[in-house]
Amino acid sequence: MGHASAMLETHPDGLAGVDQGLVTRCVEACLDCAQACTACADACLADDMVADLVRCVALNLNCADICDTTGRMMSRPTGFDAAVALRTVQACATVCATCAFECERHASRHEHCRVCAEACRRCQRACEELLAALA
Amino acid sequence: MGHASAMLETHPDGLAGVDQGLVTRCVEACLDCAQACTACADACLADDMVADLVRCVALNLNCADICDTTGRMMSRPTGFDAAVALRTVQACATVCATCAFECERHASRHEHCRVCAEACRRCQRACEELLAALA
Amino acid sequence: MGHASAMLETHPDGLAGVDQGLVTRCVEACLDCAQACTACADACLADDMVADLVRCVALNLNCADICDTTGRMMSRPTGFDAAVALRTVQACATVCATCAFECERHASRHEHCRVCAEACRRCQRACEELLAALA
Amino acid sequence: MGHASAMLETHPDGLAGVDQGLVTRCVEACLDCAQACTACADACLADDMVADLVRCVALNLNCADICDTTGRMMSRPTGFDAAVALRTVQACATVCATCAFECERHASRHEHCRVCAEACRRCQRACEELLAALA
Repeated sequence: MGHASAMLETHPDGLAGVDQGLVTRCVEACLDCAQACTACADACLADDMVADLVRCVALNLNCADICDTTGRMMSRPTGFDAAVALRTVQACATVCATCAFECERHASRHEHCRVCAEACRRCQRACEELLAALA
Repeated sequence: MGHASAMLETHPDGLAGVDQGLVTRCVEACLDCAQACTACADACLADDMVADLVRCVALNLNCADICDTTGRMMSRPTGFDAAVALRTVQACATVCATCAFECERHASRHEHCRVCAEACRRCQRACEELLAALA
Repeated sequence: MGHASAMLETHPDGLAGVDQGLVTRCVEACLDCAQACTACADACLADDMVADLVRCVALNLNCADICDTTGRMMSRPTGFDAAVALRTVQACATVCATCAFECERHASRHEHCRVCAEACRRCQRACEELLAALA
Repeated sequence: MGHASAMLETHPDGLAGVDQGLVTRCVEACLDCAQACTACADACLADDMVADLVRCVALNLNCADICDTTGRMMSRPTGFDAAVALRTVQACATVCATCAFECERHASRHEHCRVCAEACRRCQRACEELLAALA
């Protein structure tokens, strides 16, 4: 349904030497995870147990921002710089793992945390697979 | 594949009095359009004819930012304020229409503009349908 | 100390027919308000009374995103479109007023809300003055 | 003039074990650099020599996004995670150095690149000083 894959294929140059499928999957997973974390933070705020979820909200917010930025950066072959990309995707994999771990702690009681943890784990894997290709 | 629909359904409250399907479609279209515009801007920069595409790049950048913000705002039922939402979604519909119009001018020569225009038009429609429900 | 004013003055074209001082003030107020709202949301989360502050957090997050986007858009004369700018700056003035109102309710008990309300009111005024010039 | 310093001081907890001045300086430098890069990208687009500046535009866009995210993350003591912060601030220092280097190549002919390079170098230094304290 989304246009990310088509958009990345229409680029005049593309990302030399990197499997396009890995880039697309990382971009899509970043967008999805950013939305999930934004929504999970808001759902935590609406929860009766918000006091137990404050770290989850704050991690969600950082994860959303870093995923957003990583998805944008990997959508820009013209601006590609290997050192910048490596560090940014590493930061993204790290924050996804940290946020997933926190959400998983609440997953049995809070459905939004369960779904968000899934999105974070998928994004973490997509970043790790891209890192292996970039390194 | 994405988690947006599931995330929005797990919210303890949801958005009272607004069809959830319209909200989900708007959020998904915003994320998709933001990515398309980010990628189209970068593809325009890599184009031999970049000098003809500068307004396209600049509009793409504004469209990406407004779509991003609208998608985030509509993912936050707890922070919902009708007056803020109306104006933001109006701004989003307007920028999507403006960016689509510009991309359509280049669509026959630049495939990235053709695909991006599609994403912009879909987001414009999703915003307009949501506006009708919010008003 | 910041470079916003110098940056906006070095633009080859600038924003035709709009007082440059109003644009600079709006951009600076947007950046400042976005940071204040991001920090206020996090400070609310760390507060013992977080349950009383959930609407404040959620409004802060929307305000931060809209201010960020408005500050970026007004930093782009090349991408300027009057209809898009009017609606975006209107959305920004509205969310700043809404967020300021909420923060002011907590200002006597929470210093972060008091300072944040100040940043929101200043940004609201800067947006309203720019709107008068754009209309 | 800005509220960043006051906001960071009103936080109930603050960032344990890290000099508050270093955090404030990093946050302020990130906001400033994000705006400078956004404005430099737009000024490059308006330049007659845009074809020579495409890599500068694309790097500016990545730098703006990473600085924005870093400034937000360091404004959130509640969401602080040392591993995430280290990698994000490293990515930020790297992109600032890369973008500054590119802008400096154009500084003698393009005033916007000269000013932007200044903002990037200041942000790079602020990130490196914070990294030394975080490590």
